[in-house]
Amino acid sequence: MAVMIGVDWGTSSFRAFRLAADGAVLGRRSAPQGILHIEAGRFAETLRQHVGGWLDEGETRVLLAGMVGSRQGWVEAPYLACPAGAAEIAAALVAVPFEGARVRLVPGLSDTDDSGVPEVMRGEETQIIGALTEIRGDGVACLPGSHSKWARIAGGRITTYRTYLSGETFSALRYGTILGRMMTDGPTDLPAFDRGVARAAEPGHLLHHLFGVRTLGLAGKLKDVESASYLSGLLIGHEVRAARPRGLRVHLIGAMALCSLYARAITACGGESSVEDEDAAARGLALIGRRAQWN
Amino acid sequence: MAVMIGVDWGTSSFRAFRLAADGAVLGRRSAPQGILHIEAGRFAETLRQHVGGWLDEGETRVLLAGMVGSRQGWVEAPYLACPAGAAEIAAALVAVPFEGARVRLVPGLSDTDDSGVPEVMRGEETQIIGALTEIRGDGVACLPGSHSKWARIAGGRITTYRTYLSGETFSALRYGTILGRMMTDGPTDLPAFDRGVARAAEPGHLLHHLFGVRTLGLAGKLKDVESASYLSGLLIGHEVRAARPRGLRVHLIGAMALCSLYARAITACGGESSVEDEDAAARGLALIGRRAQWN
Repeated sequence: MAVMIGVDWGTSSFRAFRLAADGAVLGRRSAPQGILHIEAGRFAETLRQHVGGWLDEGETRVLLAGMVGSRQGWVEAPYLACPAGAAEIAAALVAVPFEGARVRLVPGLSDTDDSGVPEVMRGEETQIIGALTEIRGDGVACLPGSHSKWARIAGGRITTYRTYLSGETFSALRYGTILGRMMTDGPTDLPAFDRGVARAAEPGHLLHHLFGVRTLGLAGKLKDVESASYLSGLLIGHEVRAARPRGLRVHLIGAMALCSLYARAITACGGESSVEDEDAAARGLALIGRRAQWN
Repeated sequence: MAVMIGVDWGTSSFRAFRLAADGAVLGRRSAPQGILHIEAGRFAETLRQHVGGWLDEGETRVLLAGMVGSRQGWVEAPYLACPAGAAEIAAALVAVPFEGARVRLVPGLSDTDDSGVPEVMRGEETQIIGALTEIRGDGVACLPGSHSKWARIAGGRITTYRTYLSGETFSALRYGTILGRMMTDGPTDLPAFDRGVARAAEPGHLLHHLFGVRTLGLAGKLKDVESASYLSGLLIGHEVRAARPRGLRVHLIGAMALCSLYARAITACGGESSVEDEDAAARGLALIGRRAQWN
């Protein structure tokens, strides 16, 4: 017996889950219909297209998380400030008008760094909540990606987090600088990735290390097929060294391929990590949905 | 009475100088004909097009510096290892076949960083040699740009140097990431540039600071017209803090507008600098040419 529909609706993709009371995924739909691909005003239509069948079968509750709650999304849900856990998030859901179901939006979380510069996330908070059982109330979660998030968890709440622009910086350097001219696409070359991670520990700033990607290639010490993997390791190595709190296991949440690379870099830096399964978003939606007032 | 033609021939531009024995510039030609814009095999033709008149008037010596001596250039001049000064460079010139004049190439300089990663420069060595009179034999030269160079000078020779990919990283981030979507082009907003420089001194890695460019914009704390200048200050601030040796005046060599921004960042970091005049390349060519064997 399903009790809720959960939707992880981000910038580039749409993923819907039909969820049991215990969070089990009874059905799923996904489509490359992230909010950037939805014409203005067609959010309700797109939602109905994917989950209309489940609604016809009796579902009445839909919980949305991700960039769908941003200014560029369906309805803007104001950010909730850290620290926040499932209870605070469930109490701050935003209702979205929709015929035939009660639709609610999960708010993103805001924070400020040590210098008072704002932090924002939308969607990752739901994945972290979904991984809380594994994290057991206290620890560190890392969600690698275009804008990697490193969150501290205490007492089952997200207390603070920091963002690193690593993924987007990789793409920008790969496709927008002279470094990319020596790079070929293909699967990650792990020894080259490891060399990049090790390079991040050497003296010199990232901006200096970046030039070395070129000179190692010119000197015949880095092959074209290795160069992109080395750059990836260099950036991830810098991120892990800057972001990882010492002595705490890192819970990696996200796509397995990228999480595996982060796990590798964390090990190389002397840390420990584990990769959570990819349904953290579904579990987070179920956990928040169970605590919510649906009236 | 002129005695030599000097040419600074880089990736994107061609600059020729008719030089007196004392290095005075008696005539100049420039064109947007960097080596990337020269069809294969047409280097001699392009050179003759710009300096043929001077050759007809009796000049017989042409000294070339810059990327024209790279694998993608006219003739490849092997790198000379640091430390090297005008004497070592003059002794390592490479002859280029050319009818009607003796044409020589200045070799680039190679070095290795503290971890053994190669460094390369082509053209900057000539500008540094040209600024040696100002540097008075010992000091630090900084040549800001796509690939910024920071060189230590001792006893009139370039002893070692490090490269930072700051300029290219700025362009890649500006035009290839979400940060750029909030940016407008225009003259540098100095207060925003200064804020970026100050941000570089705050806790957190560059990859974290980069995300702040976005969040400050979202929070209304950084205007669209300020955002690119802030990013520029952030990157230059990181570079200056990583590259500047404490207690030494920095001699800035290059285009005045960019050098002025570096001078501003160096001052903000508690350092001192001076901007050398823009004819350093011409003076360097004259100094090297005077020491060369032209037989």
